[in-house]
Amino acid sequence: MAAPVAIDDPDDPRVAAFRDISERDLVGRQGRFIAEGTVVLRMLAAAHAAGRFRAEQVLILENRLPGVEAILDAFPADVPVYVAPARVIDAVAGFHLHRGVLAIGRRPDAAPDLDSLIATLPDRALVLAGCGISNHDNAGSLFRNAAAFGADALFLDETSCDPLYRKALRVSVGSVLAVPFVRQGSILDLLEKLDAAGFAVWGLSPRGEAEVGDIPVGPRMALVMGTEGEGLPQAVMSRFRTARIAQRPHLDSLNVAMAAGIGLYRIAQLQGRI
Amino acid sequence: MAAPVAIDDPDDPRVAAFRDISERDLVGRQGRFIAEGTVVLRMLAAAHAAGRFRAEQVLILENRLPGVEAILDAFPADVPVYVAPARVIDAVAGFHLHRGVLAIGRRPDAAPDLDSLIATLPDRALVLAGCGISNHDNAGSLFRNAAAFGADALFLDETSCDPLYRKALRVSVGSVLAVPFVRQGSILDLLEKLDAAGFAVWGLSPRGEAEVGDIPVGPRMALVMGTEGEGLPQAVMSRFRTARIAQRPHLDSLNVAMAAGIGLYRIAQLQGRI
Repeated sequence: MAAPVAIDDPDDPRVAAFRDISERDLVGRQGRFIAEGTVVLRMLAAAHAAGRFRAEQVLILENRLPGVEAILDAFPADVPVYVAPARVIDAVAGFHLHRGVLAIGRRPDAAPDLDSLIATLPDRALVLAGCGISNHDNAGSLFRNAAAFGADALFLDETSCDPLYRKALRVSVGSVLAVPFVRQGSILDLLEKLDAAGFAVWGLSPRGEAEVGDIPVGPRMALVMGTEGEGLPQAVMSRFRTARIAQRPHLDSLNVAMAAGIGLYRIAQLQGRI
Repeated sequence: MAAPVAIDDPDDPRVAAFRDISERDLVGRQGRFIAEGTVVLRMLAAAHAAGRFRAEQVLILENRLPGVEAILDAFPADVPVYVAPARVIDAVAGFHLHRGVLAIGRRPDAAPDLDSLIATLPDRALVLAGCGISNHDNAGSLFRNAAAFGADALFLDETSCDPLYRKALRVSVGSVLAVPFVRQGSILDLLEKLDAAGFAVWGLSPRGEAEVGDIPVGPRMALVMGTEGEGLPQAVMSRFRTARIAQRPHLDSLNVAMAAGIGLYRIAQLQGRI
């Protein structure tokens, strides 16, 4: 790790990247994102070491430093570590939610596209796809479940939100940095490519034909989630097979992340990956 | 429904109960709570009709009125319905999150206690218990899952948050108003009472002995969830049987609501209730 540098002035240009992070969506600014909290910081260190993401700088509340030194040790010495008192961090970051542990990460310039990610998948694979996942909580929870049940990748269509957004990343407990993903193109195009690559594509919907526990589990499985409320588009429901999760007749069906978790758990068990 | 009354002045005392609802925790003020959004309003109407909760008053953004009249029809005529322009609602409620549909609900004076709720449970029953569920999102999600899988009741210990808090109620999509619950006493006392009533009590924990899909399912089942992070107290782990959900070795285990959902789904299926 780099020797920690004390910052005493909120206007210090070295911490300008952290300014008002609650107000702005950093994502899109040259692929940068905010990692907050010790769990996400640990995942960023691992992703940096693996070359999947780059850590640009770290900002730590001074009294949190002793508690996170083991995590900081996992970053190379060319990643600056700034340390500041609460007064300075609050003035820079503009809010109290950071829990004293912040970092700026960045996507690699050559992030994988849809075709290259599909090409990396193993012969026995389980992937999750999302269509119109616009809620950051749901996006983060999908990644958390994908990681828990050992999914190999997560595919989001272009109408889904960016899972590197601060809240989605936090809710994912950093899994967005661990589960390979792309967010690109239309859902139909994406699913056709998975189908062509030998994936059995199953849409999950309250109107699905088969109970999720009864679907035949092959070596390559893709589970597709729609947006909450509207569900999967009819074009997806018509083109691919569909499964449901038995539940009581109820105004609102299961939360999308919950449904995905149940589906992933069943398939991961039957594929022997958990 | 009552004839809608137009409110033009944010200081009108008739809507004083809605003042600054984002800033205050209404719960505890004589058992009152805030219902927001059409889904929760519909559940409040049903709970009022069933005598489980009382609706005290409703406040609707004027341009939302046509869209919610079918729901308002389900309230009796002695529940006032106030209608106001956005300028007035924003000035009263102090935030934009209400989506134009708000109501004040109230617990009945004679809400059930632990013993009386247990006494109402059927011979074949599935209940969920929570220990230290202090996060409102998690509390709401537990209720949503309990409703989806037909659980008969939800028991929270005294260290859990009040699920009638605005955000928990919203996340539950109103299920807090539908699934009978108490929040009372220590977790051990609660579980001993369920055990004495013939419930097979199973704690869910990453350190559980049995895989959740393999546990013997009897007529009365109680699933127990701990707080995220710390999990179930050792006293519960030692006294009762425990189950785990197979997952990849991972820094953070499944979200508590997710784990509860998988457990409830399996047991509800095996009990034939979904």
